Amino acid sequence: MEIKNSVQQIAQRAQAAARQMSRVSSTAKNNALLQMADELIRHTQQLIKVSVRDVAAAKKSGLSKAMIDRLTLTKSTVAGMAQGLREVAALPDPVGRVTSMWRRPNGLVVGRMRIPLGVIGIIYESRPNVTADASALCLKSGNAVILRGGSEAINSNLAIAALLQNILRKNNLPEAAISVIPTTEREAVYEMLQQEEYIDLIIPRGGEELIRAVVAQSRIPVIKHYKGVCHIYIDAQADLDMAVNICFNAKVQRPGVCNAMETLLVHQDIARQFLPLIAAKLQQANVLLKGCAKTRKILKNIEAAEEKDWYAEYLDLILAVRIVKNMDEAIAHIEQYGSLHTESIITNDYKNSQRFLNEVNSSTVLVNASTRFSDGFELGLGAEIGISTTKLHAFGPMGLEELTTTKFIIYGEGQVRT
Amino acid sequence: MEIKNSVQQIAQRAQAAARQMSRVSSTAKNNALLQMADELIRHTQQLIKVSVRDVAAAKKSGLSKAMIDRLTLTKSTVAGMAQGLREVAALPDPVGRVTSMWRRPNGLVVGRMRIPLGVIGIIYESRPNVTADASALCLKSGNAVILRGGSEAINSNLAIAALLQNILRKNNLPEAAISVIPTTEREAVYEMLQQEEYIDLIIPRGGEELIRAVVAQSRIPVIKHYKGVCHIYIDAQADLDMAVNICFNAKVQRPGVCNAMETLLVHQDIARQFLPLIAAKLQQANVLLKGCAKTRKILKNIEAAEEKDWYAEYLDLILAVRIVKNMDEAIAHIEQYGSLHTESIITNDYKNSQRFLNEVNSSTVLVNASTRFSDGFELGLGAEIGISTTKLHAFGPMGLEELTTTKFIIYGEGQVRT
Repeated sequence: MEIKNSVQQIAQRAQAAARQMSRVSSTAKNNALLQMADELIRHTQQLIKVSVRDVAAAKKSGLSKAMIDRLTLTKSTVAGMAQGLREVAALPDPVGRVTSMWRRPNGLVVGRMRIPLGVIGIIYESRPNVTADASALCLKSGNAVILRGGSEAINSNLAIAALLQNILRKNNLPEAAISVIPTTEREAVYEMLQQEEYIDLIIPRGGEELIRAVVAQSRIPVIKHYKGVCHIYIDAQADLDMAVNICFNAKVQRPGVCNAMETLLVHQDIARQFLPLIAAKLQQANVLLKGCAKTRKILKNIEAAEEKDWYAEYLDLILAVRIVKNMDEAIAHIEQYGSLHTESIITNDYKNSQRFLNEVNSSTVLVNASTRFSDGFELGLGAEIGISTTKLHAFGPMGLEELTTTKFIIYGEGQVRT
Repeated sequence: MEIKNSVQQIAQRAQAAARQMSRVSSTAKNNALLQMADELIRHTQQLIKVSVRDVAAAKKSGLSKAMIDRLTLTKSTVAGMAQGLREVAALPDPVGRVTSMWRRPNGLVVGRMRIPLGVIGIIYESRPNVTADASALCLKSGNAVILRGGSEAINSNLAIAALLQNILRKNNLPEAAISVIPTTEREAVYEMLQQEEYIDLIIPRGGEELIRAVVAQSRIPVIKHYKGVCHIYIDAQADLDMAVNICFNAKVQRPGVCNAMETLLVHQDIARQFLPLIAAKLQQANVLLKGCAKTRKILKNIEAAEEKDWYAEYLDLILAVRIVKNMDEAIAHIEQYGSLHTESIITNDYKNSQRFLNEVNSSTVLVNASTRFSDGFELGLGAEIGISTTKLHAFGPMGLEELTTTKFIIYGEGQVRT
């Protein structure tokens, strides 16, 4: 009951803060963001000290070295957060932008104006830098944010948020525009997800398990992606050097992220030529290949792919490979096994490039480029608050604009309906 | 179990149909819509006969005369449906439209292209014309639709859909692009709302009770509005003749709809002058006024408004009236009691008009015009599939564009991430 009341109070205050924030000028928001960057830098030593406590507790509870690395605040991670705040300050403000305007036959002038969504809840895992990054994006887009980070980072998250709140206060902005759920109790997440009256959107950031739990419990709309099973299709008309280069990049450059390639589809006409080239290069980088029966007639020493491999998001140096008869089969494979995340075609055939762009309805579709570009910064959104693979509201990488909606504004001169 | 399986099968087939429909050209879709219009006209007598069965059953079960009127198909309602189909055919096709495109420093060309949402479920009450209207909008926007109308209209709905499906078949379009849940069992609605794997969006159309039941049960995103508590604020600087004219229109022209005015807010400086004028005009039209204490000092014979009146969507010739000290109080009232639907200010003060447009974040905000313009046709969207008062995906009247989303399309020339 106590947790429920406390979470509800945070949500109520956030809603009141959101109403104020929706009216704050870009200049005032940008000034606050720049001061927040300075404030973090100024308190680098304090943040590192607080982080030491989180790290000590994490070591005691046996967290993996990778997890502890992600958790640890250093001079360089603090500098990174500050830099992130400054970059958000430099982005154009979406709020108040009139995206279109037209005149009706009766003289009414109708426009659509971007406005903030309201209160955004972010649920995330161990990286404490998300506390600063997400706060910056929500603040810049005129929203209030409620942050619920991983329990292992609670001290760091609270310390970062307290510094940001200092600056809100100094600028006469509502402190409740940035809130951290101050307890590590799981119940608090559940209660947060029930506050549909006060919270407008939930964005979970983390592994599939976290996201599924959030979706199952939430009464608030959730924007999320469960996984990225990204495909590259090598068409018969592909430039094979380019294909090798792109596939290598998409698989090896950073295999643990959602826009890495997980399945390679190869047109049967070029399989004999292409597969040995890419296999040699990938195997040098220790990539484990799993092939369909046809693939294994060409690459004789690789493992067999099973049905479940076509659904797999390995997030690792593993790649499923399948030979397809034609583009129909490639598109059918993507529709059946894909996750609507990101797919690329490598081709020099004009008609096929157009067909792939038009017919594949994943959130990001590329011609002759690496799937790794499916990212808010790389696409030029200036930021990324997450990636959506559900089609409502946002589809694909989400930037500042996706933290807003539009209202209709109408200039009349006395018109009535007849 | 049987109903569950049958609903799931309908949803699965709709998803397969949606994939096909997403690739159909505008010309093919428009031809089908025009043929559907002819098909309805050609079968007018048949539809009227089927409707007689629905009406007979409705009379037996004691439905109100108003409900029976809405249910009855006549030569004129069939002609109206056909006309609606032709109008949708004439609208621009949103699918494939590239809403923006830009070049990145590395040469990638990035665009956002409109694509259909997929499968849309419509749950509605007795008007059978929704069967044709909603089918047309979903077909034109490249989606598949699953229709679940009121049980009292089941025969009419099935007959209309069968005619539309005839045309789909004749044009080699997938019949499952338009489906009607063929049973009146309530369980079927519940099962429909569980098909999150196949249905992308649910739009309920009807009373608040229907909509709340849908939201409570659905695992699929729902776009809806519960109610429209629309306000008009008469500023101190208003042209009083214009104010009287607009208020009369907003309250009286069609009081039973969601964009009719429910609460009138009047600046204290002009209350003494304005209230007698508008009261006289409204009372001539049999409007019942309920006022705050200050209002009743001017309009001495009207009822007192209670707290609950400020929340009320009367949908009737009743109006709540409140005197406010200034615009701050007017905006605070709208934030506290409003439904985020539609609000209008009547003023000749430039600064106040701008402030109202910027600060009131309801889905439609007007200056010097009737709230009755909050409507997809009136705003120039060409159509209206519903109105949303939740901010995600769509806010305000929804046209064809709101039945689509955007994907990122990227033209590369071999780019990889470094």
